[in-house]
Amino acid sequence: MSASDKSGTASRRTFLKGALAAGGAVAGAGAARAAGDPAITQIQPWMQELGDGVDVAPYGKPSEYEDQVIRRTVEWLTADPVSSINFTPLHDLDGIITPNGLCFERHHGGAAHIDPAEHRLMINGLVDTPLVFTMEDIMRFPRENHVYFLECAANSGMEWRGAQLNGCQFTHGMIHNVMYTGVPLRLLLNEAGIKSEGKWILPEGADAAAMTRSIPMEKALDDCLVAFKMNGEALRVEQGYPLRLVVPGWEGNMWIKWLRRIEVGDKPWHHREETSKYTDLFPDGKARRFTWEMDAKSVITSPSPQAPITHGPGPLVIKGLAWSGRGTIPRVDVTIDGGKTWAQARMSGPSLDKSMHAFYLDIKWDGQPLYLQSRAHDSTGYVQPTKQALREIRGVNSIYHNNGIQTWYVNEQGVAENVEVS
Amino acid sequence: MSASDKSGTASRRTFLKGALAAGGAVAGAGAARAAGDPAITQIQPWMQELGDGVDVAPYGKPSEYEDQVIRRTVEWLTADPVSSINFTPLHDLDGIITPNGLCFERHHGGAAHIDPAEHRLMINGLVDTPLVFTMEDIMRFPRENHVYFLECAANSGMEWRGAQLNGCQFTHGMIHNVMYTGVPLRLLLNEAGIKSEGKWILPEGADAAAMTRSIPMEKALDDCLVAFKMNGEALRVEQGYPLRLVVPGWEGNMWIKWLRRIEVGDKPWHHREETSKYTDLFPDGKARRFTWEMDAKSVITSPSPQAPITHGPGPLVIKGLAWSGRGTIPRVDVTIDGGKTWAQARMSGPSLDKSMHAFYLDIKWDGQPLYLQSRAHDSTGYVQPTKQALREIRGVNSIYHNNGIQTWYVNEQGVAENVEVS
Repeated sequence: MSASDKSGTASRRTFLKGALAAGGAVAGAGAARAAGDPAITQIQPWMQELGDGVDVAPYGKPSEYEDQVIRRTVEWLTADPVSSINFTPLHDLDGIITPNGLCFERHHGGAAHIDPAEHRLMINGLVDTPLVFTMEDIMRFPRENHVYFLECAANSGMEWRGAQLNGCQFTHGMIHNVMYTGVPLRLLLNEAGIKSEGKWILPEGADAAAMTRSIPMEKALDDCLVAFKMNGEALRVEQGYPLRLVVPGWEGNMWIKWLRRIEVGDKPWHHREETSKYTDLFPDGKARRFTWEMDAKSVITSPSPQAPITHGPGPLVIKGLAWSGRGTIPRVDVTIDGGKTWAQARMSGPSLDKSMHAFYLDIKWDGQPLYLQSRAHDSTGYVQPTKQALREIRGVNSIYHNNGIQTWYVNEQGVAENVEVS
Repeated sequence: MSASDKSGTASRRTFLKGALAAGGAVAGAGAARAAGDPAITQIQPWMQELGDGVDVAPYGKPSEYEDQVIRRTVEWLTADPVSSINFTPLHDLDGIITPNGLCFERHHGGAAHIDPAEHRLMINGLVDTPLVFTMEDIMRFPRENHVYFLECAANSGMEWRGAQLNGCQFTHGMIHNVMYTGVPLRLLLNEAGIKSEGKWILPEGADAAAMTRSIPMEKALDDCLVAFKMNGEALRVEQGYPLRLVVPGWEGNMWIKWLRRIEVGDKPWHHREETSKYTDLFPDGKARRFTWEMDAKSVITSPSPQAPITHGPGPLVIKGLAWSGRGTIPRVDVTIDGGKTWAQARMSGPSLDKSMHAFYLDIKWDGQPLYLQSRAHDSTGYVQPTKQALREIRGVNSIYHNNGIQTWYVNEQGVAENVEVS
């Protein structure tokens, strides 16, 4: 008696009723719920009176019921808040756009509050003509729009020695994904004219830390952007307002914020942030440096320690994110039994180069414990490794580039915790 | 002596210096600027002291220097703020993502502040099993991510009788573009089981206005979503928190906010919002109804009345947006002489179905007056018409579906105004 529909089979129509057969609680089972549920037998207060009309703000903010969806810090992580980091609440988000107010950020000398009218970008060094640009000057060059992830190389760094932090916000939250609008760096460099000896650039920030990183000229001329907008509006102060460098797919630290100068040189500068920091110490005492590309990585964001299963057995959405500094993510595998068996996840949303991708596995949970993992494949064929495989090569004294597979153990009550399995 | 680079020709390197040849002011001309510019001869205050470290907020907000980037209202447009509208500041934005706090919105009975734990979605009428869903229930169905524009059918409505409002925020700002995360409506309808007589749905809102619109079953089962996230986080209160209908490419009024019920019926309900409102009155006294699809449209957002040219002649970025309820935008034409000659604009960013597209024309402005227009082509082959062509068919008593070509006149001082040209 039912109209034909896109899904086709009768089994889809018993999506939730099927939970009865599985022995779990029934959700949304129609008339039975309707009779007993005060939420629909009584008229809700918001239907009985006029809502806000006079103060829909010039710049809106989230519902008061979302006040737990926030950036968080790990207090013991750094010695002082002036050089610190906060984390994106991945477990509470969905899709591939990170809203600007929730984007993690890391600063080394506090966040500079810059008047854009007074801000300048200088290009000097091995160039034909040193130049100084105002923001207005930069806005006159052709611009482009791209969605890119920015991941701190130290993301998941606390996990090198074992499962430490209880929540994907903390284990994986040094990442965000936004649409940047900016001018290709090559246009600005070409305006100054790169001398033939010019093989490296040193971008420098205008904050108190004056952050610098050496970047090879090939990358500078490839897809680097001098960006002034994120998700449509100006960069946030903590994201480098009014100008930051975008280095697609490469270590977050290189995406210099509060960008004020770019020096062209003939060799790398070997500054603090690429020697003392952002290098990987190996067991034999040697260190790997210039580890620029962020390797393919993924994490299940729900269920996770901060996002327990609250509805009991039956239909369950497993969601997560995957990304690669080398391209797109054509495939993610998910296991619920700690790696004994794997299923291919469903991807949803645009698949963009060097952007986050969203994946899902929709299962019927039987109420038994789960060992959840995800494994990303990127467009180069690279497959996300286990933490064990990484440690075998890099030891446990690394801080950076921990892109190992993450495991959440979920108990029968639906509570998840960060674990490791062999 | 200069290194080879991606752009190739020497002419690119004189991008700004070329402004000298054009007779305009020089921007960014290197050493000359550096010598005289206090912004770089003095050490900026933000480099002399530590910035914010202790209060990078749990939910961030824009720089204080961006306090003019806001939603605005047109006070005389409605009788009372309780049923009112505000407008997206398109001239200040870029790319294709509208940040959540700046998304225009229209409400008819104020914005309802709903406790998601108490919210319910009922599906009733010509279904096998009436159902009531909690938010948690909805979160257990498979979900999808899509970027869609939402345009009020009355966008540009004030312009039917001629150039009225001075700024694209007001003439075109009843639109936004975000990534929605939600459950395909067909999954929920199929859960209830659509009876064979069920040919229409009536979604209903939980606000004081209890907004309703009739939607044909074909569309309901096609790409409609029951959405709970926008740009990664929960819907904003004024955008329908915690749940809204998404009706891709169709009139914004149909995207019922604070979605609480969907009734399945065998014929349209002909409620107020599809009879008294959202119909187009023709010169012969007949009215066009059920004008669901938003036709292809575009507008130049800068230069525009709220975004004058402040830098004088030389390199100028003309930017704009284009969209179509029927597909993508493969092409936009731009004219600077009021339609005598047209150039094809450069598109930048992902081209997504029923989403905004960003276009640019990078020109050398000679300082003479400009008559700027843009003309969108959509993927069905439809070409955006002139306002004159629309009026010839629809008369001037329309309110809705004004997708005519917009003209800005820009004078020698760079100031733009809303005009019409034959």
